[in-house]
Parts: sequence; structure tokens; C-alpha cells
Amino acid sequence: MSWSRFKQHYLSIDELDFALDISRIDFDDDFLANMEPKMQAAFADMTQLESGAIANPDEGRMVGHYWLREPSLAPEPSLTAAIEDCLTAIKRIAAEVHSGRIAGAGGTFKNCLIIGIGGSALGPQFVADALGQPKSDKMRLFFFDNTDPDGIDRTLAALDGELGQTLSVVISKSGGTPETRNGMLEAQAAYTDAGLDFAKHAIAITGEDSKLDQVARSEGWLERLPMWDWVGGRTSELAAVGLLPAALQGLDIDRILQGAAAMDRQTRLPETAKNPAALLALMWYFATDAKGAKDMVVLPYKDRLMLFSKYLQQLVMESLGKELDLDGNVVHQGIAVYGNKGSTDQHAYVQQLREGVHNFFATFIEVLKDREDDSIEVEAGTTSGDFLQGFFLGTRDALYDNGRQSITITIREVTPEAVGQLIALFERAVGLYASLININAYHQPGVEAGKKAAATVLDLEQKVIQYLHENKGSRQTASEIAHNLGLEPSTELIFKLLNRLVANNRKLLVEIASNSTDSLFYAE
Amino acid sequence: MSWSRFKQHYLSIDELDFALDISRIDFDDDFLANMEPKMQAAFADMTQLESGAIANPDEGRMVGHYWLREPSLAPEPSLTAAIEDCLTAIKRIAAEVHSGRIAGAGGTFKNCLIIGIGGSALGPQFVADALGQPKSDKMRLFFFDNTDPDGIDRTLAALDGELGQTLSVVISKSGGTPETRNGMLEAQAAYTDAGLDFAKHAIAITGEDSKLDQVARSEGWLERLPMWDWVGGRTSELAAVGLLPAALQGLDIDRILQGAAAMDRQTRLPETAKNPAALLALMWYFATDAKGAKDMVVLPYKDRLMLFSKYLQQLVMESLGKELDLDGNVVHQGIAVYGNKGSTDQHAYVQQLREGVHNFFATFIEVLKDREDDSIEVEAGTTSGDFLQGFFLGTRDALYDNGRQSITITIREVTPEAVGQLIALFERAVGLYASLININAYHQPGVEAGKKAAATVLDLEQKVIQYLHENKGSRQTASEIAHNLGLEPSTELIFKLLNRLVANNRKLLVEIASNSTDSLFYAE
Repeated sequence: MSWSRFKQHYLSIDELDFALDISRIDFDDDFLANMEPKMQAAFADMTQLESGAIANPDEGRMVGHYWLREPSLAPEPSLTAAIEDCLTAIKRIAAEVHSGRIAGAGGTFKNCLIIGIGGSALGPQFVADALGQPKSDKMRLFFFDNTDPDGIDRTLAALDGELGQTLSVVISKSGGTPETRNGMLEAQAAYTDAGLDFAKHAIAITGEDSKLDQVARSEGWLERLPMWDWVGGRTSELAAVGLLPAALQGLDIDRILQGAAAMDRQTRLPETAKNPAALLALMWYFATDAKGAKDMVVLPYKDRLMLFSKYLQQLVMESLGKELDLDGNVVHQGIAVYGNKGSTDQHAYVQQLREGVHNFFATFIEVLKDREDDSIEVEAGTTSGDFLQGFFLGTRDALYDNGRQSITITIREVTPEAVGQLIALFERAVGLYASLININAYHQPGVEAGKKAAATVLDLEQKVIQYLHENKGSRQTASEIAHNLGLEPSTELIFKLLNRLVANNRKLLVEIASNSTDSLFYAE
Repeated sequence: MSWSRFKQHYLSIDELDFALDISRIDFDDDFLANMEPKMQAAFADMTQLESGAIANPDEGRMVGHYWLREPSLAPEPSLTAAIEDCLTAIKRIAAEVHSGRIAGAGGTFKNCLIIGIGGSALGPQFVADALGQPKSDKMRLFFFDNTDPDGIDRTLAALDGELGQTLSVVISKSGGTPETRNGMLEAQAAYTDAGLDFAKHAIAITGEDSKLDQVARSEGWLERLPMWDWVGGRTSELAAVGLLPAALQGLDIDRILQGAAAMDRQTRLPETAKNPAALLALMWYFATDAKGAKDMVVLPYKDRLMLFSKYLQQLVMESLGKELDLDGNVVHQGIAVYGNKGSTDQHAYVQQLREGVHNFFATFIEVLKDREDDSIEVEAGTTSGDFLQGFFLGTRDALYDNGRQSITITIREVTPEAVGQLIALFERAVGLYASLININAYHQPGVEAGKKAAATVLDLEQKVIQYLHENKGSRQTASEIAHNLGLEPSTELIFKLLNRLVANNRKLLVEIASNSTDSLFYAE
């Protein structure tokens, strides 16, 4: 990269120990100028949003995650107080858990089992891994982030004999997310099997008076913390959802919040050239032709940031992946996100990035500080960290030499502040980009279709089970069962359901091969 | 899906407890017939490859990973013997480690530190997670899979006080992979700091007489196991690379090999309709217009298979992501792969998959068996596993209703055999697809460019350090230093190098903000 283009498109923000380099995205001089009116409109949208507008029109909701780190910005004093009270409660709870004042039947809590999915797991997992220290963390975190029975059993096996010292934190805004509800019931059963009272080992983070809130209240759980309808799941890391697990682990949540607040101040500036979130959004616009024409490959050169791409997958794809724009036009927007870490990924898929199908732009994340202590020399004068940077710079150039463009973010160290910054930066970039392409970044209508289809499948399963039990011993193919139920269009689904039921000791049996479409199913 | 199309395109293989459903890829009746000549040519290529042809022409190498699970197929008796001897040695070593006959200074080995990157880490990580049981595994596995100093420190912290019971396994074919060499030296330093002799806690898996082999021999390491030049890194999971870690963990490697061998027998059949690897390759061809026009999203509905997509990223992208075809035409091939697990990902990016940019096809992996024991009912008659299947079937239909196509693979349970099957299936599908699009799937020329560029960066760093120390106290900008070294075109690289050096106590200092392009750098 020429020094002059680099200097022109390198934004270094001293107070944040942060820099953004967009010189390797090949926009020309006119692009930023041409985009400026759109960008100013996006800033105006963001100002509206931050002052409490109904920025999520489909759901009629305010979008308030920026208030979480600057409560005085909230549009009503009651919201400011709610945020501050929640933070106070989180710190009190963490302190009481650490001191043993809040304890389990087995004594001081040493494990924390987070039961949540999507935004209620991806943020906590990212932050726990980015900032955790195996030797000094105050608690070990475990997750139920799915409704996979075997996955649940495996996590429970790791906690075997320690449930009395395991604090469960159940996170669900509505309390109706089935995976989380199932996880809660599975956990409750495990505590009960161990002779323990789940309620005395559980905290709920949920909406006021949700189903989960009611359960927690009626059963007398240890604590209840709020989830507000003006914080979406994918932007809830700096609400109780993310902060309680972090505080329990022993991380400094004030520093995380301060980092986010500082990045917010910088990205609130309506001067594009000084605003890294605006520049990121513009680069996405340019690199993907404003329509997701290229994937975003996220390559942090630091092990601790490996889960950032998974976190971003949700934040970016669930926010931007929309069929309709705000005017109702069919647009099929989005940007696909994937990545793990460098230089590991150089030994996986950088071959394709450099030579293969040109369907991506890269986002490198560079961390300047190598480690706490001094390094050994692995060659004369050279350290492992020198190699890490060498691979980053070398790969970036090798890609660029082949026309593969990239963005580089530089931070000094993976501190709590830096993690707060990264979260705030991408939250804002997503919001600004959504304005540029005129979509609602704060709803997720497409998720409903899958949920409804799943509910239909579960209903169908009950019908099939009932039918077989009413016709005990009668051997029938999936096709015959569907016909007899008057559900021919669902024959394939019925076959899939039967095939799994017989694999799980549900008193249903099969003749002929279990996977065959000619299999005969029956109940004993 | 209509029952008739499903039945027509559902391949169930009873002996393998395996099924492949391609009915939701919208090819028409002519497609398979039209592709049959190409497919037969691909089968012929594969037959050549399996019988010892130089199937990797650029590197002049045979491609022999299929012999690993059927050693009698190897083209020379010496290769058959080498494979069998290696397997015998792996089992002997694992037995001796487990019995304590091979032990560390601290007693019986309970931890295994795998030092490797790319194919030397992704396969072992996938298999360890897919088949591990926290309560019964014979050893715990840890990884150095990068040259990140902080990542290395974090893993060492988890092993603190236990290095005397930690067996290090260093995996590098050439012995020259810098990340692995650095990891080895860092591990060696940690053992030395703990008063331990690394050599007496280390096993090498490497090419005969490689640099690593020479080190291991001269230092008297515990054991040495071979890596052959006819097994590529990304297909080495069923060589010592993958089998030794698995055996040490206590997994049944014979069953893994049997599963792979059984899938090999099935996918060796030159009858397309009965060959799941051929059908997969054809679906990739159809879904991506034979040019990677769509990404492959891998969605296993089972926590244990979460790392499969990372494993496939390397296998698929490094194999298929090529600039040139076998005739030297510029083709920029490849298929981008990403994914984690369902139903977790439904709460992350399925919003975009359903509604957003239509740039992917999905590959679902269904696992029929829920768990070892019976399940509780989370609703009347319904289990957590019912929900998991409901979400899978519901999401698949919700995607298909919106024109998003998918492939479904069904296995009964994540057994060692099934893991072997999945590896063998995708290895063969990649090989057949490479024939269909006429590329060499077994080299990785693009990786070299990044390595060379990295070496240049490391050389430059030494020059800059030397210059500053020769000019102690003299405060200069990156631009001045570049000019004085006669390296103006590298000014940006020099700036990046300096910026990181001053963040790492390397006796280099900076005035003005460290991230500023106007910073003055100097040595004390």
C-alpha cells in the first residue's frame, strides 16, 4: 500500500488506542464525497434512534442499547434509573456470590451455567473467552445454548457432583424461547436428581412479568434481573444478559462499559472522516455493492478474539439479512460473515481467499501487544509474536496483490475496554449501514417462519404418536399412515418423525431398515 | 417436499446407518443424466488415484489417504506395511501411556498438548469434540494451534503445575511450519522453566528425516511417528496426525477407521445413484453453477458436530479454492464453507438465510438418537430432542419455501464409525467434485505467497530494528526511516512493524501517539 493512500485512509484514535485502516478497499476519491448526503441522513437516523424514536417500526419499539453505557442519554428518567439500578444489582449479586453470601447447597458457587441461546449466549461466550484467565477467573462458565439432549448431558457430566456449587442463570426475554425453556427444565431435573432445589441455585434474566419471570417469582429463585423490550437480543451484551455472566466470572464490567461509551462518543460524531463506524459502514457499502455481493471474512490475529466472528455473524446477519426495505420493496439484503482466527486460518482456507472464487472482503483485527511477559526468541532476534504479525501483514499483502480487498482494525490489547469498543463499533456500523440501505436492522421477521414450521412439526408428531398407539401392532408405511391420517402432503415429514422416534425408545418399532422409505412402523 | 421426489432422491444405506437426501436441490430429471459422462470420468480419475497415480501433478505426489483405512489397497507392499506398522505403534503408545509405562516426570500422563496447525489441529479438534466424554476420556487434550504468544500463555496457564503429567505431541510434516516450530520452542521453554526435560515428554509426528525428525532423534524424544508425502495435511485425520491424539484420548480408532473404510467402499462404487459422495459432488456442481456461486452453510443439529464446519472449511476450501484448472486456465474456483450448529444458528443468522441475500445452499446433518438415557418431557409427550428435530425440519421447510435449497445427511448417532464415515464421505466428494471441475484438489499454491510475504516482513523487521539500534536516540518517523533505509515502497510495513515493536518492550520507544503516522520512533 502506498504511504500516501495509507495515511489518507488510516484513522487513528489516540484516546481509544484504536485505529481503522480502510486503504485496502479500492474506493476512489469521489466515493466518500458522493456518499456524504446518505451518510448524513444515516447520522440523523441514529440521532433520532438514540433520543428514543420508534426506530424498530415493525415491532413499535425504541432501540436503546446505546443508553446501557451512558444511562443519562435515555429519553426518560425512569429508564435511566432502571439501567443504573440493574447495574447496581449486577455488582451486588456478583459480590455476594463471590463472598459466599449467596451460595448453593454445596457452598460457595464456583461454576455458572448460562442457559440461553442466540444473543443470550453468543455475547457472553465471546466476552468470557476474550477476557477470561484460567488461573484467576472467579467462576467457570458453562452453557446450555441449544436443545440437544446429548449436548445438555455432556455439559451436565462436566458439572457432575458440583451442581450444589453451580449457579444457573436462565436468560430469555419472553421466557418462551423453547430451547431455553427446555434447558431450564433439563437443568431443574438434574438438580432435583442431585437432591438439590433448583430455585435456590437459579437467577432469571427476563422481561418483567414474562412466563420466566412468573416462574422465578413463584418458585422463589435467588434473583431476577430485567430484560427490556428496547434492547434486542443481539445487542444485549452490555445489558444484564452479558454483564451478569461477565461480573460473575470476575471481569471488570465497568471497564467494558467505559470502552463502549468511549467508542459511542467517537462514533456519534457526524463527521464521517473521524467516525470509524461510519467508515466501516461505507466500506461494507462499497465492498458488497450495497447488496451483500461479497461475504465478510473476519480474521482476528489473536486467539482470544476467535469467537468474535460468531458474535458478528448474529449481529450483522440477523440485523441486515432482510427481505424488505423500510418502504416495503423486496431487496433480499444482508452480508454473510464467517471467520475464526489468524494465522490458523491461513492453514485452512486462505488458499481459497487468495486464489479462488472472489466472493469476499476481509476484516483483519490486529492486536499490538503480544503477551504479559517477555518472549523467548524462536530465531535470533525474533519472537512468536513477530511471526504472528508477519503472517498477518504477509497474508494481507498476498491477498491484496491478487485484488482481494481488506479492512484492518488495530487495538493495543484485548482489554475489557477494547472488547467494549469492538462491540460498540460494530453495533453502530450495523445501524448506520442499515440506514444507508434503508432497512430495519432491529427486527427478525424471518425467524418466525421457522418457529411456526417447527410448531407444526411438533403437532404432527403428536398426531402420529397417537395414531400408532391407537393402532397398536398394525404395521404401516409412512405413506399409509399419512393417508390414514388424511395428511398425504406431510408424508415426508411423517417419515422423518417416525424414523427418529424409533431411534429413541419411544415404544415405536420398525420393520425393514429404519432408513428405508418402505419401512413398516408400529407401536407395541 | 413431495413424497415421490423425496423417495426418488433419498439414498438410504442400511449397513452404514446413513442416508443422504438431495430432494431439496432443485435439479431436474435431465441433470443427472447429462452429468453421467463427467461423473464416470471422475470415477475413473479416482480409480487412478487410489491405485497410486501421481494425482497431485504439481507436487509430483501420489494421493494415498484412502489407503490409510484399507492398507491392502496401497500400490506397494512397503506402503501397506508402513501403514500397518504405524497403526500398531499408535496403539502400543496409547496403551503404554495409559498404563503409565510411558510416563512423565510427574507420573502418569493425564494431559496431551497437541502442537500443530491446519490439518494437524482441525481434524484432531473435531474428532476430540465429536467423540469425547468428559467423565471417561483417558486424557484431556489441549492445543497450540497458532503462534499467538498470549494464546500459548493461556493454554500453559491451564496446564500450570501439570506439565510433568502432560505429553506433548508435535505434528509437522516438514518440521518447518513456523507456527508449529514456535509452539514447540515455547512448550520446551515452559517445560524447562518447570525443571522438566521436554524431550522426555514429547512425541513427534513428522516426515522421515525432516528437521523435526532430526531434532526428535537427536534429543531422544519418547517416540516418533511418520507423516508420508502421499498424505496431505487436510486429509491426514486418519493418519497418525489424527489417530494418535484420538487413541490417547481413549477413543476407539479401529471403529473410526472401519467407518471410513465402509464409506469408502460405498463411495468407490461407479454407480452414481448409489454413491453418496458422487451425489454430493453433483449437488455442489448444480447448486454453485460449478463455480462456487453459492456458499455452503453446514448446519449439524447436534452439539458434538459443531466443529465439523471448521474441519470442512479447510477440506473443501483449501482443496477447491484454486486459480488455475488442470489445463492452466484461470478459473478462480472454490466453495466458501461456514456454519456452527442448529438450532443455535437459528437464533443467529437463519434470519438472513431465509430472507436475505440468496448466496448459499445449506447442508443439514441430522442425528437420530437423542441421548444415552431416557428424556424428561418438557411438554406433555414431548422431549428436548423432539424440539431439536422440530427446529431442524421446520427451518429446512421455512428455507425451502423461500427458494433456499438444501442437502440433508442423516446418521443414527455420533459414533466413531459415523465420524469416520463423514470424513471419508467429504474427502471423496471433494475429490470427485475436483474432477468434475478439472482442478488439482491436492496442492495449495496460494498458501506459499502468504508465507513468502511473511518472510519478507520478518526480514524487514530485523533491518528496522538494526537501523534503530545503530542510530540510538535519533527520533525519526516511519517515513524517514524508510527513506534512510532506501525502502520507501515499504513505508507502511515499516510503520506497522514499529507500531507493534513499541507495544512489546523491545527497547524501542515512540514519541507522539503510538498509532499516529507522524510518530517519532527511536531506540534507547
